[in-house]
Amino acid sequence: MNACMFVGNNRFSLVEDNLFDQTYRQPEHRLGGSYLNIVMAGLAGAGKSQLTHSFGKWLKEKQGFEVCYVNLDAGAEWLPYEPDVDVRRFVRVDQIMKDESLGINGAIIAAADRMVQYLDRIVSWISELDSEFVLVDSPGQYEIFVFRDSGPKTVQALQKVGTTIALNIIDAQLALSPSAFLTALELATASSLRLGVTTINVVNKADLGGTEKIKAILSNPRLMREAIEQERGGAITDLALGLLEHIEHVMTAQRPLLVSALRGEGIADLYKAVNEALCVCGDLT
Amino acid sequence: MNACMFVGNNRFSLVEDNLFDQTYRQPEHRLGGSYLNIVMAGLAGAGKSQLTHSFGKWLKEKQGFEVCYVNLDAGAEWLPYEPDVDVRRFVRVDQIMKDESLGINGAIIAAADRMVQYLDRIVSWISELDSEFVLVDSPGQYEIFVFRDSGPKTVQALQKVGTTIALNIIDAQLALSPSAFLTALELATASSLRLGVTTINVVNKADLGGTEKIKAILSNPRLMREAIEQERGGAITDLALGLLEHIEHVMTAQRPLLVSALRGEGIADLYKAVNEALCVCGDLT
Repeated sequence: MNACMFVGNNRFSLVEDNLFDQTYRQPEHRLGGSYLNIVMAGLAGAGKSQLTHSFGKWLKEKQGFEVCYVNLDAGAEWLPYEPDVDVRRFVRVDQIMKDESLGINGAIIAAADRMVQYLDRIVSWISELDSEFVLVDSPGQYEIFVFRDSGPKTVQALQKVGTTIALNIIDAQLALSPSAFLTALELATASSLRLGVTTINVVNKADLGGTEKIKAILSNPRLMREAIEQERGGAITDLALGLLEHIEHVMTAQRPLLVSALRGEGIADLYKAVNEALCVCGDLT
Repeated sequence: MNACMFVGNNRFSLVEDNLFDQTYRQPEHRLGGSYLNIVMAGLAGAGKSQLTHSFGKWLKEKQGFEVCYVNLDAGAEWLPYEPDVDVRRFVRVDQIMKDESLGINGAIIAAADRMVQYLDRIVSWISELDSEFVLVDSPGQYEIFVFRDSGPKTVQALQKVGTTIALNIIDAQLALSPSAFLTALELATASSLRLGVTTINVVNKADLGGTEKIKAILSNPRLMREAIEQERGGAITDLALGLLEHIEHVMTAQRPLLVSALRGEGIADLYKAVNEALCVCGDLT
């Protein structure tokens, strides 16, 4: 990995490489008016909020960046970080349930759809804070965000004020089941297409064990084929094979990272991957 | 489409073809002890519960089959059908929120995980009812079901007592956005791999308009490529192209059906597709 400059947003540069917890960059003079927005995407329970917290803490404390935390989960009860911008100021799932006598499923969908009308205000709020990194924590139930209007429209709104990328966060426990991991990686490509931004795959919860098996698959995507054959009793259909080929290509283009948001491990590598994703020398799209 | 017999479960046969609302089959003498379980899969808001209702009504009233309705959504407040077997007897999202002071997201995940321990009792309950068709309505938030243990384990439990297939229900409004439709179809393949059963793609809510555009794409998968190029301003990445090729292959293997669960339209075609999916002459796997 080489240190390189962001495309069209050269306020950040790697000054050191390789060592975890080493200072990569000291705060610099602001050269431009745009931010780097990072959308924390991923399935329910993947650890989106925890990684928002850990990554933000690392960027602030280890790198001295100004970080803005944005919560877009209208159903969140508790967050590990203190949001600077919070969708719950405009929309809350529990309030919709109470006021409109809706069930949980209906209220979650209504909240996501309703959020869209507040995007201009949310983005304007983000702009006022004028931070270098904007970490955007997405709703708990990811399918609502990525498949309905709210996800693509959020990204479009964010892109008006800054470069925007996404992290697709995958629970390491899913990675232990080859079919689940394949499915999660496939969803990441789909989500990248749907949101229209570069997406980095991040396997989270490395602290829960099984990391050796996961590391082996990450370093050699073809091992997934064998693992799926074993899991499915040897019979892989043509469609699954087609999918596997696609995913092997995805994993070769960008090897998913392994992190522990809880322990704050692997965050320096994540930062490097974010930098590379925006570099002319490391285009992941 | 040819009329044909189910593999290993030849209690059903098509006696007529082509015409909607025509009687396809009169109840026959039961030849075996196994059922046909149909898992209603699909993203939140796709109309899983409505299709469970409409399909069950059609099977009962038009075909004279014995139908058992199973609700596996522990967060459901209201259902359009009367469930014969109901997971809410064992687990309820609202109760978990109250008893364990959990937020909405945490309670939905906890409910799905907890359901697994009641699967034996649920399947035994289904067996006692001894119906010809078992329609299994899955949890509202599909990602929880398909990516965590509850989905695969539910299917494994159902397979002990009968042939099991899944319908992947897609909101027609998603089909109007090419990238969303592509993503939803991709999720269907992934879900099929994860659940390990034959899956039929069904586009629902044909009543909401835009059917001509959807029909055109369904009948010519290559149109999706053009539509995505238009939507994304001409630039399709290599990864998206790989995905498109895979999905074109999927759509050619099984053209997604267009139905309106609300109006009960297209249900006869759905029944034929279910029959074909289990036929030696129409293997969709």
